[in-house]
Amino acid sequence: VSRIALDAMGGDHAPAETVAGALAASAAGVDLVLVGDEPVLRKLLERAGADLPVHHAPDSIEMGEDPARAIREKPNSSIVACARLVRDGSASGFVSAGSTGAAMAAAAIIVGRLPGVLRPTIASVIPKPSGRTIVLDSGANPEVKPEHLVQFAEMGGVLSQVYFATGSPRVGLLNIGEERGKGRALEKEAFGILEASGVNFIGNVEGRDIGSEHVDVIVTDGFTGNVLLKTTEGAASMVARLVAEAVSAASESAQAEVLPRLHPIAEMMDYESTGGAHLLGTAGVVVIAHGSSGRKAIKNALAMAQDGADRDLVGKLSAAIAAG
Amino acid sequence: VSRIALDAMGGDHAPAETVAGALAASAAGVDLVLVGDEPVLRKLLERAGADLPVHHAPDSIEMGEDPARAIREKPNSSIVACARLVRDGSASGFVSAGSTGAAMAAAAIIVGRLPGVLRPTIASVIPKPSGRTIVLDSGANPEVKPEHLVQFAEMGGVLSQVYFATGSPRVGLLNIGEERGKGRALEKEAFGILEASGVNFIGNVEGRDIGSEHVDVIVTDGFTGNVLLKTTEGAASMVARLVAEAVSAASESAQAEVLPRLHPIAEMMDYESTGGAHLLGTAGVVVIAHGSSGRKAIKNALAMAQDGADRDLVGKLSAAIAAG
Repeated sequence: VSRIALDAMGGDHAPAETVAGALAASAAGVDLVLVGDEPVLRKLLERAGADLPVHHAPDSIEMGEDPARAIREKPNSSIVACARLVRDGSASGFVSAGSTGAAMAAAAIIVGRLPGVLRPTIASVIPKPSGRTIVLDSGANPEVKPEHLVQFAEMGGVLSQVYFATGSPRVGLLNIGEERGKGRALEKEAFGILEASGVNFIGNVEGRDIGSEHVDVIVTDGFTGNVLLKTTEGAASMVARLVAEAVSAASESAQAEVLPRLHPIAEMMDYESTGGAHLLGTAGVVVIAHGSSGRKAIKNALAMAQDGADRDLVGKLSAAIAAG
Repeated sequence: VSRIALDAMGGDHAPAETVAGALAASAAGVDLVLVGDEPVLRKLLERAGADLPVHHAPDSIEMGEDPARAIREKPNSSIVACARLVRDGSASGFVSAGSTGAAMAAAAIIVGRLPGVLRPTIASVIPKPSGRTIVLDSGANPEVKPEHLVQFAEMGGVLSQVYFATGSPRVGLLNIGEERGKGRALEKEAFGILEASGVNFIGNVEGRDIGSEHVDVIVTDGFTGNVLLKTTEGAASMVARLVAEAVSAASESAQAEVLPRLHPIAEMMDYESTGGAHLLGTAGVVVIAHGSSGRKAIKNALAMAQDGADRDLVGKLSAAIAAG
């Protein structure tokens, strides 16, 4: 199967936006099942005059709950049901915009890690003019060991090859200077291990290299990666907002000419265009969407998950870890 | 005195651009002394048909050298001479665009720490529409303890008050989520200590809050802060470059109308407009400029240092640390 389970109850705008996103994805050819409170979901589908498979799971896990505990105590939550569908082979992957911690716990505990994986990792995709930069870990593991970074590099490399057909993905170690010997104990030790690994390691990179065409995969701990990701969002949206304000003060004719040219930039930087981030290292495709996802982000996250399943992302990750 | 010593030999474009920046700063009223290889500097001044005080210090510390060792072994280097002028009371501060490590070592070892300061810290200033966000530590201390973060908050608060007259600066702890309990052991422990301190602590903030008008000072370790700073630069310049390309494809009349409106945004985001970052916690004003500083950045860094001296930044930091 390459059916994708959608946690229809997860996210700030669920279930209205998750159902709308699912309908758009389904129309685009994604084979999916809505997982959540069936009467609520049926009503939304009816109102849209559409139909989709629904798997009943009436409970929800809230953002503040302890993930591991919630997974145990709420077997009928939508996120646990998604993970069970994957474990049982009824789905090849799941998408959730709910609690990231709960999605990770459900993936690790119920779907399970791939053999040899030390820590599943969240791989985010940052757009740039020449393509995409993959950043991992971007939030799953706030504190890591050097050997974790090497596995992140291996898994990020597979993701880069599967989606962006980068022959031998160039891996950079996020650091505070380009020279060898920079950084914390973590970076100093990881540098040597990455050099000795099978990874195409290009050395240290810095925060300003996120838009560089010379690196495909940036590895770091989940704390720093999360800060990098959100800072990119913050800085890009600040500049975009200022530009929009400046242009809106120009004449109508100038606006009519310039705005369509700016549109592709806004579209490129819009996280909803990407859809979500892959959790790598578990025995199923898992895509974690932004908590504030609207229908467009949900649709793209579902397409991303389907794509990962179709391209056998999990099989390729498994082979890389076994070889690494 | 409020004379400022300039390391005229430090930086990628020294001494031509450092001397040009010094001349511009001097014309704007900054009282300064050029520190470096006197014959070289005299020739540049002659060529410009201008004069400035010069303090002879013929040696240079290169980027790759071990800072503490270079400070010991090169007593006639421009950076050591700058620090000595401050220690001896001949200057109230110094500016360097050379090796950041050497500037920090010279400041800590020769100028000396203020009593009670655990770790001097680099405070960067990130522009935003509503003013400035101060981020510290942004590179001096890659690994820190919770009590260091509290002192960074106190010192950053003083900087915010001195320059931006923010009554009671709002301090945020950089983290990977807003909720209490998020982050690494460092953040979990620092959260409670910050709450109990005299700092106006507003809780956790995220990378996307760099442009927020709700926070004045963001504290974190020097590794994460450096990544945040450089990522902001990278993301903002990527978007700015794309916007410039898009607009340059429009008609001349549309460009003539839109470009002047975009100019203030480019100016705001240009690090040369800020000039440099303060090293806080030593017994003199120290401003560290970007290695790639041109004359504009040097001029603004000198003005920043003079401003810090005129406003008694060091005295106020000393009082805050003594009270904290």
